[in-house]
Amino acid sequence: MNENGNRKSPSKKKKPTSSGRLYNSEELVAGIRGNTIAALSKAITLVESTKPEHQAIANRIIELCLTEKQKTLRIGITGVPGVGKSTFIESFGKLLTKRGNKVSVLTVDPTSSKTKGSILGDKTRMQELVQDPNAFIRPSPSGDSLGGVTRKTRESIILLEAAGYNIIIIETVGVGQSETAVHSMVDFFLLLKLSGAGDELQGIKRGIMEMADAVAINKADGENLKAAKLAEVEFRRALQLFPPKENGWTPKVMRCSALEHTGLEPIWEVIQEFVETSKANGYFERNRQEQNRSWLIQHIEQSLKNDFNQDPKVKTMLPDLEQKVMLGTLSPFNAARQLLAVYRRTENT
Amino acid sequence: MNENGNRKSPSKKKKPTSSGRLYNSEELVAGIRGNTIAALSKAITLVESTKPEHQAIANRIIELCLTEKQKTLRIGITGVPGVGKSTFIESFGKLLTKRGNKVSVLTVDPTSSKTKGSILGDKTRMQELVQDPNAFIRPSPSGDSLGGVTRKTRESIILLEAAGYNIIIIETVGVGQSETAVHSMVDFFLLLKLSGAGDELQGIKRGIMEMADAVAINKADGENLKAAKLAEVEFRRALQLFPPKENGWTPKVMRCSALEHTGLEPIWEVIQEFVETSKANGYFERNRQEQNRSWLIQHIEQSLKNDFNQDPKVKTMLPDLEQKVMLGTLSPFNAARQLLAVYRRTENT
Repeated sequence: MNENGNRKSPSKKKKPTSSGRLYNSEELVAGIRGNTIAALSKAITLVESTKPEHQAIANRIIELCLTEKQKTLRIGITGVPGVGKSTFIESFGKLLTKRGNKVSVLTVDPTSSKTKGSILGDKTRMQELVQDPNAFIRPSPSGDSLGGVTRKTRESIILLEAAGYNIIIIETVGVGQSETAVHSMVDFFLLLKLSGAGDELQGIKRGIMEMADAVAINKADGENLKAAKLAEVEFRRALQLFPPKENGWTPKVMRCSALEHTGLEPIWEVIQEFVETSKANGYFERNRQEQNRSWLIQHIEQSLKNDFNQDPKVKTMLPDLEQKVMLGTLSPFNAARQLLAVYRRTENT
Repeated sequence: MNENGNRKSPSKKKKPTSSGRLYNSEELVAGIRGNTIAALSKAITLVESTKPEHQAIANRIIELCLTEKQKTLRIGITGVPGVGKSTFIESFGKLLTKRGNKVSVLTVDPTSSKTKGSILGDKTRMQELVQDPNAFIRPSPSGDSLGGVTRKTRESIILLEAAGYNIIIIETVGVGQSETAVHSMVDFFLLLKLSGAGDELQGIKRGIMEMADAVAINKADGENLKAAKLAEVEFRRALQLFPPKENGWTPKVMRCSALEHTGLEPIWEVIQEFVETSKANGYFERNRQEQNRSWLIQHIEQSLKNDFNQDPKVKTMLPDLEQKVMLGTLSPFNAARQLLAVYRRTENT
């Protein structure tokens, strides 16, 4: 068993000099704490690597980074493609750095490895912010599964916070399951919308609206302004129909124009109000603890599932059983029993 | 390993005469197909039993019941306590039997074993329906976990359909996670509401409204009528803000009075319209297939998790590691690695 708890040994194993590892990790951690971009980038690359020897160093780095507690704020931002997320994050990020914050931006996009371009896109999209010495932008790690991308992003947050970034913005692409993942790693979740309660709404996944701590109607400028004001009223009314969130917070609805830099100030004020309230009533800290706990549980469950799904006998048997289950000729419970029996026999030999 | 794929043998093992088992199962299945209530009740009791020898017979019965396909409809009904679910189901159930349907009612209530009373309550609540020869009411199985209750309910559906019940109503208590479970086993999901968009709304869990195929404002009678009409308009407007469901169906909002038997007819018409539309576009069958597939996956994952959580070494180590993870002094990934390493070592010995 290697250090990752995987049962299979890596096929190629480099000579692991454990002193060399220690040296590397501690040097890198010193670099991170000194906010050397090179050290930070290198550490994130190690976190993103799938090589067991890289992961071993990454794990050591993360443990070292965890020893000091930082006061940080993690903001999730979502919205359908075209809502203006990059422009918003660029404008909003600059507002934050101007006020003395150190801001970093991560993107969770499990599709980026396929659609390519979006990786490069991240940096070209936010050209001004990328040149800001108090900002650090890191595109989505490549990863075949949302689970993989999620783990890497969560670990990167720890590194960025150790490097002194006090505000971490995590952007999601607004399609698929990534919103839930991002929601589970942030303190505040902002949903960007477009004016016009019709077509634009259809792109957003069901359930997202219920996660939002605030909804901002973007592109509230020029000819759009009237429609944006209308949308604001509509959303406010709709959100009233939802039950209050468990932190006692009532989601706010605002409008802004990232392009014209208007309405960003009020959004930042709302976020600060949220932080103040939820720190005062203990929700902020409780939520982070609960998030940590569910990362642990999720990671264990994911590992157990992966191990099962990679079992050769399970792989052989699954398609046929699954087909029968779907057609209703075999009960799901019988099929599960057969698969688990085979899996456990493999394991015990 | 026993027939359930569990690694631990039952402590007391009755002499299993496999011919005796076969005899029992086939006799019971014949009884079920002949709609003998005694046989049906006995089979459901076997499904609900935790004894391995009972489960073995139950599994055989289910497989035999799966061989014939029935045209059935599974309706989920939810709403907060006090919304009038039992009265609604009694009135609605009678409307259905009058039209020649055979109706059975199941309740998913994972809390029923603790709160007792609700088990007895089910039958006393629906006194008229319980005497209807074309209706069969079965209270929630006792089970310590939602997963257990869910499995038992899903298996009971198969038995009831084999017995000729063409409409299965599954009621949920409107608290906790049971709505998601019920939603995953039905064709149509009905949310009961009360008039007045204020306080009453707060009892309903976030996300439920997005699952509903129809919302019925109940108790729309007497002094409530005006408020109910208002609520109807409000909900209709709110639901417009949601994106359309993947089946292309737009959720309907109606009002009814289960007590005065008004508005039930239109609800049944809406359900029939839903069935017609979704059978025509293939969604109905696809949804059932997808539900079967996710039962399989869920059941496997649940079994893997249970096995892990019951590991003695995991049990010993977990509380301390979990605490460290929650306080942020240990990374979730490191803790998971430690636990999985211990678990797999146990397994391989």
